[in-house]
Amino acid sequence: MRQSWHERFCDSPDVLKSARCDQTVVPVLDAEIGGRDFITMAGPCSVETEFQLMATANHVRRAGARILRGGAFKPRSSPYAFQGHGLAGLQMLARCDVPMVAEYADILQIGTRNMENYTLLEAAARSGKPILLKRGMAATIADFLRSAQVILDNGNPNVILCERGIRTFETAMRNTFDVAAIVLLKQISHLPVIADPSHAAGCRELVPALARIAVAAGADGLLIEVHPNPEKAWSDADQTLNFTEFDDMMASLDPYIALRPQISPREMVSADVMEAVG
Amino acid sequence: MRQSWHERFCDSPDVLKSARCDQTVVPVLDAEIGGRDFITMAGPCSVETEFQLMATANHVRRAGARILRGGAFKPRSSPYAFQGHGLAGLQMLARCDVPMVAEYADILQIGTRNMENYTLLEAAARSGKPILLKRGMAATIADFLRSAQVILDNGNPNVILCERGIRTFETAMRNTFDVAAIVLLKQISHLPVIADPSHAAGCRELVPALARIAVAAGADGLLIEVHPNPEKAWSDADQTLNFTEFDDMMASLDPYIALRPQISPREMVSADVMEAVG
Amino acid sequence: MRQSWHERFCDSPDVLKSARCDQTVVPVLDAEIGGRDFITMAGPCSVETEFQLMATANHVRRAGARILRGGAFKPRSSPYAFQGHGLAGLQMLARCDVPMVAEYADILQIGTRNMENYTLLEAAARSGKPILLKRGMAATIADFLRSAQVILDNGNPNVILCERGIRTFETAMRNTFDVAAIVLLKQISHLPVIADPSHAAGCRELVPALARIAVAAGADGLLIEVHPNPEKAWSDADQTLNFTEFDDMMASLDPYIALRPQISPREMVSADVMEAVG
Amino acid sequence: MRQSWHERFCDSPDVLKSARCDQTVVPVLDAEIGGRDFITMAGPCSVETEFQLMATANHVRRAGARILRGGAFKPRSSPYAFQGHGLAGLQMLARCDVPMVAEYADILQIGTRNMENYTLLEAAARSGKPILLKRGMAATIADFLRSAQVILDNGNPNVILCERGIRTFETAMRNTFDVAAIVLLKQISHLPVIADPSHAAGCRELVPALARIAVAAGADGLLIEVHPNPEKAWSDADQTLNFTEFDDMMASLDPYIALRPQISPREMVSADVMEAVG
Repeated sequence: MRQSWHERFCDSPDVLKSARCDQTVVPVLDAEIGGRDFITMAGPCSVETEFQLMATANHVRRAGARILRGGAFKPRSSPYAFQGHGLAGLQMLARCDVPMVAEYADILQIGTRNMENYTLLEAAARSGKPILLKRGMAATIADFLRSAQVILDNGNPNVILCERGIRTFETAMRNTFDVAAIVLLKQISHLPVIADPSHAAGCRELVPALARIAVAAGADGLLIEVHPNPEKAWSDADQTLNFTEFDDMMASLDPYIALRPQISPREMVSADVMEAVG
Repeated sequence: MRQSWHERFCDSPDVLKSARCDQTVVPVLDAEIGGRDFITMAGPCSVETEFQLMATANHVRRAGARILRGGAFKPRSSPYAFQGHGLAGLQMLARCDVPMVAEYADILQIGTRNMENYTLLEAAARSGKPILLKRGMAATIADFLRSAQVILDNGNPNVILCERGIRTFETAMRNTFDVAAIVLLKQISHLPVIADPSHAAGCRELVPALARIAVAAGADGLLIEVHPNPEKAWSDADQTLNFTEFDDMMASLDPYIALRPQISPREMVSADVMEAVG
Repeated sequence: MRQSWHERFCDSPDVLKSARCDQTVVPVLDAEIGGRDFITMAGPCSVETEFQLMATANHVRRAGARILRGGAFKPRSSPYAFQGHGLAGLQMLARCDVPMVAEYADILQIGTRNMENYTLLEAAARSGKPILLKRGMAATIADFLRSAQVILDNGNPNVILCERGIRTFETAMRNTFDVAAIVLLKQISHLPVIADPSHAAGCRELVPALARIAVAAGADGLLIEVHPNPEKAWSDADQTLNFTEFDDMMASLDPYIALRPQISPREMVSADVMEAVG
Repeated sequence: MRQSWHERFCDSPDVLKSARCDQTVVPVLDAEIGGRDFITMAGPCSVETEFQLMATANHVRRAGARILRGGAFKPRSSPYAFQGHGLAGLQMLARCDVPMVAEYADILQIGTRNMENYTLLEAAARSGKPILLKRGMAATIADFLRSAQVILDNGNPNVILCERGIRTFETAMRNTFDVAAIVLLKQISHLPVIADPSHAAGCRELVPALARIAVAAGADGLLIEVHPNPEKAWSDADQTLNFTEFDDMMASLDPYIALRPQISPREMVSADVMEAVG
């Protein structure tokens, strides 16, 4: 590794590749993130109804997703964007906490807006669950790794890094997908790295191509927003794929996934990703 | 107000100026922020020792500061930058919470990294204390006002907005001081607006000029890092003024403060600003 | 000066303050930029008609401006924004060059989009005219000084630096006014520094406050867009002041200008600023 | 195409896909950019010696490159970075112009720093040569297309768009490679789009992966810096591949290129890309 990278990321020694650790594999039920398989996590932005969630789970499993994602409690950019909940939603947020989410989820997600909320990082780390850490909107790669280091320091080695786009002057897309960050992270860190093309793109037309790019970049997996009827989704409607679009995307990814060093098909795990709340 | 501003900030109707409210004045003990007086809050980045805090309090009071600031629990950019505490510091962070901080502080500060931590915003709002809300590093003005709106929605009208610089491509200063944001906020919002030139500059040579600029921009006050011996400060040493530098700065601000519409000298209030933790 | 600043700006040794030169004063006819007087340059974004230009010149002179600005040939963000010229405008642009502009102007302006057009910098330098160098939209302060150094290296010491806002994620204003850059430039460089609040703000409501801030920051002058009837201006209508607004702004600046170390009233010089074209 | 995209890019109607034109193919000698073949352009950042250029040309041709690139006259970020030329280099720059460069080159490159130099765009357009237009460091996609529209308006349909990274707060890489811009451009514009991973990465370790990503994004080609001995290159040494690295990269790209809709092997064309100078 370049000497300049050692210096740049010296705050986070334990997340860097070393003689001791070249690649962390995070076990989630019987799936492995960071291992031989490419892992797609898919599901709705927000959990709306049992029917919506089950229909999505059944569909994305058949299309090759291994992990179900669902935002149970969502501190979003606008707390008002989720029509119909208003204050009740915020009260709901405030009433639940990490242990409660951890009881129901197999992976805890630290959202973009909480990447440097160290209290939450520590509490999430101590839950013992795998942590999916999303990069902050203005977080440098050094900042991102520092937050991962905090989780490791709190005794939890199962950290999954997630690139989801950064905020720049360009507004044609929702965020600027920093795919070179995935490349760099895979070169310097032993932690698994996944990509969230849905939030990077902000519109469904671009999601399949960004997913394909993430595979080519060497990502270990994807986080994709899928909904039975995106037009009626309570949140992120514009960037959410419907079932047909998801199927098409998954099929289009196959030859790119096949170019990864190793591959072995496995069954989907009904693991749930939920966002931890501070 | 421009129609385009009404549209841009439509998520946050209650923070905008209206026939009902042109200016909020936040009472803190017997000081008023957003009122006729210009209010300087000064003190160390981190509370280190009783002596350090008392010496600073005594000095900045004599120099004209009205409110003492002190970071009791600091989720900083690097949790490792504060030498000597390490994990203990993080454990300390995790053990305390909003009610505990609120018991000792007269103003609760929501730090840059927590500006969109809605759980924390709600909890802080419910403490009933005045809330000093710092702008996030990549937060647009619309995002900033949205977080203020959340506090108002939770029944707390006493919000103080604080511009402290945003993250851009320019790295000569620690952050890019968005002074035009102060101007715009004063035109559109009834909430008091203060500036934190210490964090914007990142180095003490630039702090007095940025403070002067904030006064000229129409800010209602300042938040300044001061320490008896900055070279030995446990954090933010490079941007912290010593007593002489603080005195010189305060003297140099006087004629600019005098150009504000009204002014009346008052005594300092021994109010404390502490950072709320999520 | 900080050692880190010496390192950061080491590409541009001749623009930094030194024992040999603490402050450059650029003579323009009988005005001096960088000297004791604060110099306001004002005029229309585009030269439209002789009447428009003369009316503006007469008015801004009476209000205290010392130099008339007028865009004769304007490579703007959109070459199509200037209604009515279309291709003819572009042909006009291509037909003229630095010597032709230099014949009629007293100051040559290098526009934001040409800050790193070294061919143009050299040609402009060789005209012997004072050069008003506008900062590029994504130019760091180090980049900015490097372009100034190129002009100095080509034998022209009369460079005026102009901060006009940088491009960031914030879109509430046209650009992000980097006023701390003015402060830093005045500390490290001997070249005069002026501000262009019109382009930074992008809307006239914010121009007077940004002008006031520039004075407080220590700028040596201002560049302001003024038009007899901004609503009918061919370009930049939204950020252009009418005569009354300009008068009010100039009056409001007086006490801030008076706080500068020295001041002496002088007569206006009918110098023209025109944009050099590459 | 999304209605919002039509509005966003309405300044540049002729570069958008339409019933009349779905894809422009730019002929360069007997190669076609934007056609069925993926076109790699490779060569040194700066033309240093005849031996260096010939050795590189021979090698990259054998490895599959179709077009030779060589910076004859380079307005770079620092005019001083190119050791040994100093003022002479700048004088050289000022003495040559578009017709002179056009006489020797088969493609004229408009560099990042000149993307909005409309005088240069027009002059280059009128040369009749294909124009490789590099995106400006702070240029939005709308700005980028507007510059392409200017070239089309001047009677030259042969424009090749080149994404080379934008300037953001992240400094771990030289620029932030905006690969989603390639995806979006391929969806909305009929112009060929290529990528410059060398300048995006800024270090050779990341170049092959960024090249692979560009192929997956749907780019029509690549622009790669190659040198017989990068350590001794006069410019951009850190991001330049040596022959072995270039061979390895080209081999690794093959399966990704094969996944493009159509492919047909052809011989290399000894076309030259040179940078136009304003």
